[in-house]
Amino acid sequence: MTRIAFIGGTGPEGLGLAMRFAKAGEEVFIGSRSEQRAAEAVAKVLEKVPSARVSGGLNAEACRAGEIVFVTVPYEAHKDTLASLAELIDDKILVDVAVPLQFGGHGVRALDVPEGSAAEQARALVPNAKVVSGFHHLDATLLQNVEKPMQGDVIVCSDHRAAKRTVMELAEKIEYLRAVDGGVLANSRYVEEWTALLLNINRIYKARTGVRIVGI
Amino acid sequence: MTRIAFIGGTGPEGLGLAMRFAKAGEEVFIGSRSEQRAAEAVAKVLEKVPSARVSGGLNAEACRAGEIVFVTVPYEAHKDTLASLAELIDDKILVDVAVPLQFGGHGVRALDVPEGSAAEQARALVPNAKVVSGFHHLDATLLQNVEKPMQGDVIVCSDHRAAKRTVMELAEKIEYLRAVDGGVLANSRYVEEWTALLLNINRIYKARTGVRIVGI
Repeated sequence: MTRIAFIGGTGPEGLGLAMRFAKAGEEVFIGSRSEQRAAEAVAKVLEKVPSARVSGGLNAEACRAGEIVFVTVPYEAHKDTLASLAELIDDKILVDVAVPLQFGGHGVRALDVPEGSAAEQARALVPNAKVVSGFHHLDATLLQNVEKPMQGDVIVCSDHRAAKRTVMELAEKIEYLRAVDGGVLANSRYVEEWTALLLNINRIYKARTGVRIVGI
Repeated sequence: MTRIAFIGGTGPEGLGLAMRFAKAGEEVFIGSRSEQRAAEAVAKVLEKVPSARVSGGLNAEACRAGEIVFVTVPYEAHKDTLASLAELIDDKILVDVAVPLQFGGHGVRALDVPEGSAAEQARALVPNAKVVSGFHHLDATLLQNVEKPMQGDVIVCSDHRAAKRTVMELAEKIEYLRAVDGGVLANSRYVEEWTALLLNINRIYKARTGVRIVGI
């Protein structure tokens, strides 16, 4: 079984995470709505990480193949994608990276999610899964710069302690990143919305920012 | 004119900020609903910072005395306090430190604010003021430990550029703190709600955390 699979792994964030995990020696599977785009993404991972153990295919295959399934689709596709794949994901660890954002001339705003957060929406749609949220604050371009170390923390929220621990250990396979226990899944709202602030700060400072918790 | 005045300066956060600003050589005025409690808080500041230029009195006096007015009342008192003092605050710089939180057995949650954030509520209540939000993530106990340096960032949001700049410079008078431009006042929502996450992390790690933006 492939260890880490991505639903929507051809987007910048999924691709960046796949590269970093492949570089750390993890086996990854890139899922897409298109086999063609999945194959292109696999080639991109191999270009950056020649030693990568990587394969690709349709999102449904990703759900079957992965021991841990990441969902890295744009938020607009979050609900429909998870609803259609829920049975295949079943009781696996589902890592939700979605950030409900609205981009406008005035800047970036967090969208209200009826369930409280994208991660809680995932829990409602895939009730058997052990939903874990994390990785929201890692800049996709920096992730794909695999030669340069990342910096900052990955704040991980979940109601499933063992699954949270597994995902925190996974996050720390990416060099220099630290995983921080963010508590229950309902806290994901604060983590997701913070992304809007970081993107506004990126615009002000012309930078690619992340976050670090000080004092621990 | 006293430079920095506090509405609700006898609470732990206001008191901690007053001590730090006094230590930095700023003149401070501690406002309270009670002259007696204001006098006690002044004594506490002098105990920690013998060289402090500090005085105290009623909140209304604080609004008159301060060039920059901080509001550090608990969120429950935020609306009524500002409504009653709006005329006295008038067009001054009003620094809002309020965090709309709900404490429960399950942890800490951010409260929804009809205006979007406490800072936007302040703007609605005191329309002449130049409202700036900041200082939410500085632990009150650490602030009062004036011998130890603080760490982390003060994220400052406002629609008034000059006022924001003034408050950012003020934040950096506290040793080792860095001010970060958080953009417009509407972004204060993300900054305020993040406090709920930090308090939950504090509970998990038995720590007193703050936040730092990496990449700038």
